[in-house]
Amino acid sequence: MNETINLMKRHRSVRSYRPELVPRAHVRAAIEAGQAASTSSAVQAYCIIHVTSDDERQRLVELTGGQAKVAACGAFFVICGDTRRHRLAADRTEAAYDVRLEAFLVATIDASLFAQNVALAFESMGYGICYIGGLRNSLSEVDAMLGLPEGVYPLYGLCVGVPATSTEMPPRPRLPIEAVLFEDRYPADDAMRSLMDAYDEMYSAYLRKRGAEPGAWSSAMSRMHREPRRGDLAAYYASKGAVLG
Amino acid sequence: MNETINLMKRHRSVRSYRPELVPRAHVRAAIEAGQAASTSSAVQAYCIIHVTSDDERQRLVELTGGQAKVAACGAFFVICGDTRRHRLAADRTEAAYDVRLEAFLVATIDASLFAQNVALAFESMGYGICYIGGLRNSLSEVDAMLGLPEGVYPLYGLCVGVPATSTEMPPRPRLPIEAVLFEDRYPADDAMRSLMDAYDEMYSAYLRKRGAEPGAWSSAMSRMHREPRRGDLAAYYASKGAVLG
Repeated sequence: MNETINLMKRHRSVRSYRPELVPRAHVRAAIEAGQAASTSSAVQAYCIIHVTSDDERQRLVELTGGQAKVAACGAFFVICGDTRRHRLAADRTEAAYDVRLEAFLVATIDASLFAQNVALAFESMGYGICYIGGLRNSLSEVDAMLGLPEGVYPLYGLCVGVPATSTEMPPRPRLPIEAVLFEDRYPADDAMRSLMDAYDEMYSAYLRKRGAEPGAWSSAMSRMHREPRRGDLAAYYASKGAVLG
Repeated sequence: MNETINLMKRHRSVRSYRPELVPRAHVRAAIEAGQAASTSSAVQAYCIIHVTSDDERQRLVELTGGQAKVAACGAFFVICGDTRRHRLAADRTEAAYDVRLEAFLVATIDASLFAQNVALAFESMGYGICYIGGLRNSLSEVDAMLGLPEGVYPLYGLCVGVPATSTEMPPRPRLPIEAVLFEDRYPADDAMRSLMDAYDEMYSAYLRKRGAEPGAWSSAMSRMHREPRRGDLAAYYASKGAVLG
């Protein structure tokens, strides 16, 4: 199609990295490209923290649930929704300012449009990346480590680095496009179930090919959601100033 | 730098479009590229609804606060967080399933990584784009129009089309990189205030150049957050099954 679309379609999460650090010039280039992404009314409600200390990266391995790649990759970042600058602006005019769901949602969306540009920019330079949702396992500890003030909401981590393996895994198959792209109306459950059946077979075959235990996507989704996860998130974000209920 | 980063840095939101529709083949190509983005544990918690009916696009102009481009652009989409498929999977095994903040956050993040790939893929094909946060003005009405079941959370719209004007506006300047990229620790408020001062001047000069009323970014942020916005969002999303407080 074109170079950018081809790059997107080659994406797979990289979980094993060579030890070279990512040069700061590359970090800046990727983050400037991230800043160029759309932002709701120019609020730019995000920040990114580059964790450079070896000790802290080692500690983050534990805090993200034992993910060795957090210390082993070439650069590790924490991506946050960030309304701190708006609060500072409001304080100057003594205007009221409080964060309800709308402002928190804008920050989460802004941060993620930014992050996806950053991730793709790194990939365009030949690096591999992996988002680390496990950061949300231990937000209070991450918060203390990074000295986050009120108005900053850590969302996820990002590993970047030179991929260790030259043997490329095929990308993990995605849902058929008919299961995510609709015209004018959301489809009926029965139509969706048929698409999920087809995908379950494809997904299980992919796992077998990868040498993993085969299993349907639906079963994995059902298992994953059986118990509420990270039940303390709302209380943590409220402690940072975002009241969401 | 490279083609992908150059494309990102050329981005500006396009608000005026030529009337040509976006061919379905281009829509599919962009959305397949979107699906290739990272997704938390393969949950793919999003969907995108292509609104093709002229009447409904006209109605969406009203519902988004009078944004004519929603009807005038070449294709209009509604992007949603979507846990419907997980619920259907859970129902098969009679497993419990309820959406708290973690699952809603994953859906919002997944949807936005997907959406940014979709937007950039369209831009790589020569289209212009504009995200439409105004969709959140009237979520119940949008919901009824699109027939959204429980588990589907509309987040924002996306206009795509051939830009009407050949006179390119310069991109809106962003915060200095030092105001969003930090090493190891979040900076002190005073350091941030100095960066905001520098940016306020740059921002005001940009508005003047565009022929708009000049004004500091800080003042705009303060004005924007003076009153709580879209206070009914949490109740709406709760009505779709996501309990966030």
